[in-house]
Amino acid sequence: MNNLINLTTDFGLSDGFVGVLHGVILSINPRAHIEDISHGLPPQEILEGAFVLSNSVPYFPPAVHVCVVDPGVGSARRPIAIQVGQSFFVGPDNGVLSLAVQDMEAREHTTARAVELLNPRYRLPRVSNTFHGRDIFAPAAAHLSRGIPFEELGAPVQAWIRLAPPAPVRLPTGGLSGRVIYIDRFGNLITNIGDTDLAGLTASGTSGVRIEIAGRRLNGLARSYSDVAVGELAALIGSPWKLEIAEREGNAARTLGVRVGDEVRVTL
Amino acid sequence: MNNLINLTTDFGLSDGFVGVLHGVILSINPRAHIEDISHGLPPQEILEGAFVLSNSVPYFPPAVHVCVVDPGVGSARRPIAIQVGQSFFVGPDNGVLSLAVQDMEAREHTTARAVELLNPRYRLPRVSNTFHGRDIFAPAAAHLSRGIPFEELGAPVQAWIRLAPPAPVRLPTGGLSGRVIYIDRFGNLITNIGDTDLAGLTASGTSGVRIEIAGRRLNGLARSYSDVAVGELAALIGSPWKLEIAEREGNAARTLGVRVGDEVRVTL
Amino acid sequence: MNNLINLTTDFGLSDGFVGVLHGVILSINPRAHIEDISHGLPPQEILEGAFVLSNSVPYFPPAVHVCVVDPGVGSARRPIAIQVGQSFFVGPDNGVLSLAVQDMEAREHTTARAVELLNPRYRLPRVSNTFHGRDIFAPAAAHLSRGIPFEELGAPVQAWIRLAPPAPVRLPTGGLSGRVIYIDRFGNLITNIGDTDLAGLTASGTSGVRIEIAGRRLNGLARSYSDVAVGELAALIGSPWKLEIAEREGNAARTLGVRVGDEVRVTL
Repeated sequence: MNNLINLTTDFGLSDGFVGVLHGVILSINPRAHIEDISHGLPPQEILEGAFVLSNSVPYFPPAVHVCVVDPGVGSARRPIAIQVGQSFFVGPDNGVLSLAVQDMEAREHTTARAVELLNPRYRLPRVSNTFHGRDIFAPAAAHLSRGIPFEELGAPVQAWIRLAPPAPVRLPTGGLSGRVIYIDRFGNLITNIGDTDLAGLTASGTSGVRIEIAGRRLNGLARSYSDVAVGELAALIGSPWKLEIAEREGNAARTLGVRVGDEVRVTL
Repeated sequence: MNNLINLTTDFGLSDGFVGVLHGVILSINPRAHIEDISHGLPPQEILEGAFVLSNSVPYFPPAVHVCVVDPGVGSARRPIAIQVGQSFFVGPDNGVLSLAVQDMEAREHTTARAVELLNPRYRLPRVSNTFHGRDIFAPAAAHLSRGIPFEELGAPVQAWIRLAPPAPVRLPTGGLSGRVIYIDRFGNLITNIGDTDLAGLTASGTSGVRIEIAGRRLNGLARSYSDVAVGELAALIGSPWKLEIAEREGNAARTLGVRVGDEVRVTL
Repeated sequence: MNNLINLTTDFGLSDGFVGVLHGVILSINPRAHIEDISHGLPPQEILEGAFVLSNSVPYFPPAVHVCVVDPGVGSARRPIAIQVGQSFFVGPDNGVLSLAVQDMEAREHTTARAVELLNPRYRLPRVSNTFHGRDIFAPAAAHLSRGIPFEELGAPVQAWIRLAPPAPVRLPTGGLSGRVIYIDRFGNLITNIGDTDLAGLTASGTSGVRIEIAGRRLNGLARSYSDVAVGELAALIGSPWKLEIAEREGNAARTLGVRVGDEVRVTL
């Protein structure tokens, strides 16, 4: 399955942008197997895009992952491709690829290498300043899926932008201060506090923890959304294995008025 | 085409959940052919999800149908798979699979059998309490598409939840009282009154019927949306072969303030 | 890759309509390769649909392109298929196919021919008056992808509806008056003024042009969105190689209160 190409963008599904990517790829590699991970990323939000990409990549076999959230398209920011083991990442050098790359480096005990997508042979003949997904990234991914040597794409890049997402901070009182890093379609608040962070808090388990967010306090962790009554808030370990605050059959983000970046505290 | 897997969920397309399902499936069966039926089902609405699934299944060749609308994820509700002839259905035991299964049983004159998805060999190694689509349902579907024996998935289930959607009621005056069971993207109101119910009303055809909904009365059935003027309401037999109320180039649900469950009457 | 079928519709992704199209196609041709270009076209807007289709087709290898924006479904408007070289177009005869067909005729120096989809052998057994996508267009596309002779689909059609989109008008003062023809998900305003129209304006380049829209005046063309500050408006040549007005990291349509059809002027 070396011909697997995954697309993750903020292009939306109404304007045909995604179809164009498919067409460009199939024109170069008719045997490409294209999967659409998401095209509904919050427009222009690099960190959210990086988070969604890094959550999906571990569940895929080796593939070419294209991710485009690109507020700086046409500016000096470089178009790049990154190789990690048998997988490739293609997109703008603005950090959107970096969380997934760093995770894969750690998982596979390897070091990534990158090139700038400069070789005109692997771009469309005419390159716009507003749609590099079509003119640079999709062609590069299609050629990679056909097996061209990685280094043919362009000059090596020594350093690319690596996002440093906020890490939870240990409080003097022994608890943790974290942040909401993503809000999903259901209004669930995903934080940067991992299950291992919580497990390290107390030898006696997490039953005694309190979660504070937006002036509300939740006692203990629920096992699943259905541990609380409909309309009630629950704190639990969600599917990305991080602390999450949810409202059962409701929308916690709306109820609490919480946004990405807001603080959450765990105390004992 | 035994490797066809259909996905129908309320996951939305913004958070990458759907991409993760694709990755899990392709990691287990790289030859799987995955089709996305809908990932925009109304969140947590089991009956609407069951309706959409049951409308699409008859148009497919034999396949593995995964359907996840799962407000009870992580609770005592069972994860199940159901076999009907050459087709399989995978999802939570909350009724969301049941309308499609019942239809297929009737069409193929056969009886379904079910298992609870307990075998850890056919789940991901680590199972969350919030995302069984990824950890239980997608793996089961992928293994089924590879041809593992159905009974290997887990213990047989004797009874699973079968939804009993509201049926139209014959009025003393000879008409019918039905309900709106689905509202589509165009605001069209789909009712539980089938074309055969209407045909049985009167030997002299349906030209004399009157449709009453939300205090409005419509005379006779239109043949198509374009039988009425722009902005006018029409009652007609829609694509699921049921009585439907539509506003031409408008939104009947909004105009009438009607919701799922509201009554519609057919009188002579 | 003669089995490539592209779908572009206003069906949305919530109701399962798209899944049904996939099922119908795969039931007729299990080897079909189906690509979803967009199912979020503005409901019932024929010109916008025609524009999205015509923007994506040039990036595809030969394919069967199904496009359904069909406010007149069930009326006298004809269901048609059009052949241009090795490509096929399938949909209602209301103009939605015509821009892509005309472009391809010009590009390939050839003339299209059309048939009305009358042959019951290439329709579903029961044809509704509300969902020709399922009952007529998807079956026709699937049979075309299997290689049936084009003329078997039905009787030849001599003339079909060809949209004549508004062209920019030369002003007495030497400038151009154009129109907004599409607004994308980011709120960018795409006009009918092409890059060649602008290049023809002045021998001395486009640095001296002024763009007037909604009472605002922009001086000169930007190279890319990032040439202006966040929140500022820019006029530039966008990815369909047409004059476009955008707000950096904002929504120009909302800021300016502009709609499709509104005027834009270019002066010297």
